[in-house]
Amino acid sequence: MADRYTPRVSADPALKSYASMVDSRLDALLPPETQRPSELHRAMRYSCLAPGKRLRPALCMASAGAVGGDPTAALDAGCAVEMLHCFSLIHDDLPAIDNDDLRRGRPTCHRVYGEALAILAGDALFARSLEVLAGIAAQDSVRVRSVSLLTRAAGSDGLVGGEVLDVLSEGRDVDAETLRFIHSRKTGALIAAACQIGGLLGGGSEAQVQALGAFATDIGLAFQIADDLLNVLSTADALGKSTGSDRERAKATYPALYGVQRSREIADEAVVRAIAALDPLPDNPSREALRTLARFAVERDS
Amino acid sequence: MADRYTPRVSADPALKSYASMVDSRLDALLPPETQRPSELHRAMRYSCLAPGKRLRPALCMASAGAVGGDPTAALDAGCAVEMLHCFSLIHDDLPAIDNDDLRRGRPTCHRVYGEALAILAGDALFARSLEVLAGIAAQDSVRVRSVSLLTRAAGSDGLVGGEVLDVLSEGRDVDAETLRFIHSRKTGALIAAACQIGGLLGGGSEAQVQALGAFATDIGLAFQIADDLLNVLSTADALGKSTGSDRERAKATYPALYGVQRSREIADEAVVRAIAALDPLPDNPSREALRTLARFAVERDS
Repeated sequence: MADRYTPRVSADPALKSYASMVDSRLDALLPPETQRPSELHRAMRYSCLAPGKRLRPALCMASAGAVGGDPTAALDAGCAVEMLHCFSLIHDDLPAIDNDDLRRGRPTCHRVYGEALAILAGDALFARSLEVLAGIAAQDSVRVRSVSLLTRAAGSDGLVGGEVLDVLSEGRDVDAETLRFIHSRKTGALIAAACQIGGLLGGGSEAQVQALGAFATDIGLAFQIADDLLNVLSTADALGKSTGSDRERAKATYPALYGVQRSREIADEAVVRAIAALDPLPDNPSREALRTLARFAVERDS
Repeated sequence: MADRYTPRVSADPALKSYASMVDSRLDALLPPETQRPSELHRAMRYSCLAPGKRLRPALCMASAGAVGGDPTAALDAGCAVEMLHCFSLIHDDLPAIDNDDLRRGRPTCHRVYGEALAILAGDALFARSLEVLAGIAAQDSVRVRSVSLLTRAAGSDGLVGGEVLDVLSEGRDVDAETLRFIHSRKTGALIAAACQIGGLLGGGSEAQVQALGAFATDIGLAFQIADDLLNVLSTADALGKSTGSDRERAKATYPALYGVQRSREIADEAVVRAIAALDPLPDNPSREALRTLARFAVERDS
């Protein structure tokens, strides 16, 4: 397995310190199983509390800190972003879309709860995400803008639009521009929203929020290329989800279009640009955390 | 066909005057087919621009007027509510949930565009709904509260929660309390949000917004009972969607639990209560429109 992808770091401490906060806050923000309809709440919690990297909440919180604010001021917003991410994973895994059986090392939501409940659990996570975001402790103007950013990132010119083009591109020849279009929406849009919302909650200036958006767009690209590479080069066991499935479905991916070596270079270049985009921000531990998270985006093993 | 449900009014002019405004505004607020991904935008527009009663936007706009405001101030919010309603129809019609082939007189979204696109078109309508609502011309505090009301109405203690219990109740004996729980969420929650958001946008007082909420809760009940009755007593041709399907699936309905005659009485009683709930509001044409819409909820033929 000479071509096996060898991660340079296996997990990052900066990520872990945020993740435990996020996990316990998610637990509190998700409706309890004791509340009706308990089957729905169980399905929502199953998917959203499954062990995950919590990269998006970490980016959201570190962004609040990087503009000089308190990272914990963006904890609830980070959880809202994570719920929205979980909704998209549940729907993408459905038989009608990617038909995946494994996610985060567990059977996918529809494999455990059936398709009907999986569709509706995704919908309910979407609703809860925005309910939480509309209710964060912040000025009304920041809350409104956060909701605008997240809904735009989720919609037909963001996450969902990217997923549609991804599905429609299966088995077709896709050019570099279309691939970039898909990845920037499927992965980049939500990561950009996470960072921008974090910047707003940290009290960042317009220029700082823009810098975070530029940073995040490149991180999103690097992260998605790394995902494509892991799908080719890792094992289901290490990854907690199916591997080799992109090639089976003839998905539009960076390794398919550029090959493994060039894809790695493109991802590395994106990380270099992302790190440079943070230059205008004050030199503080949260900015350092963002830079570490940027490197982690490409150096992870799952 | 002695038992055929005989509507007392076939359509209401008050509803029609709002509907044409809503239709053209929806057309403008939905992403154009010329924009990428056009297949997604086509599916969103197919479902959301299909001829509908536009009851929820009409209630939203009339509520703004009923507290002394301008009904057109609630046009965009009404469109947001309608988009959310369309999202829920698309998902409920899916093979894994109600498996319906016909909606608003046309083949359902998944019958035309396939399941993957139908799931994602629903998701994108949900996102666009809240993006529109966050962007309405109103004070930030009103925008935030509107988003809170709509996301709560959509989520696991509203629309989606009601749909889950509805699905889970199929083929089971359901008591009156559970049936009420399902209907109040599946139908009542969104109608209540439509009226309360309208009241907020019309500049209503807290007491007025509460009165609109009470009105809407009873309208929602009456409307859902009428839906149950139409499913038993009407034809697919008149209704534009499948009939008899509730009985086939052993769904929890009012006619199944109470019989046709008693169900009609319960619906009529709810309308009487709804109309009385409007007494504290100023006597104006919009309040009259709300009362007409309340009667229409039970007297319609589709």
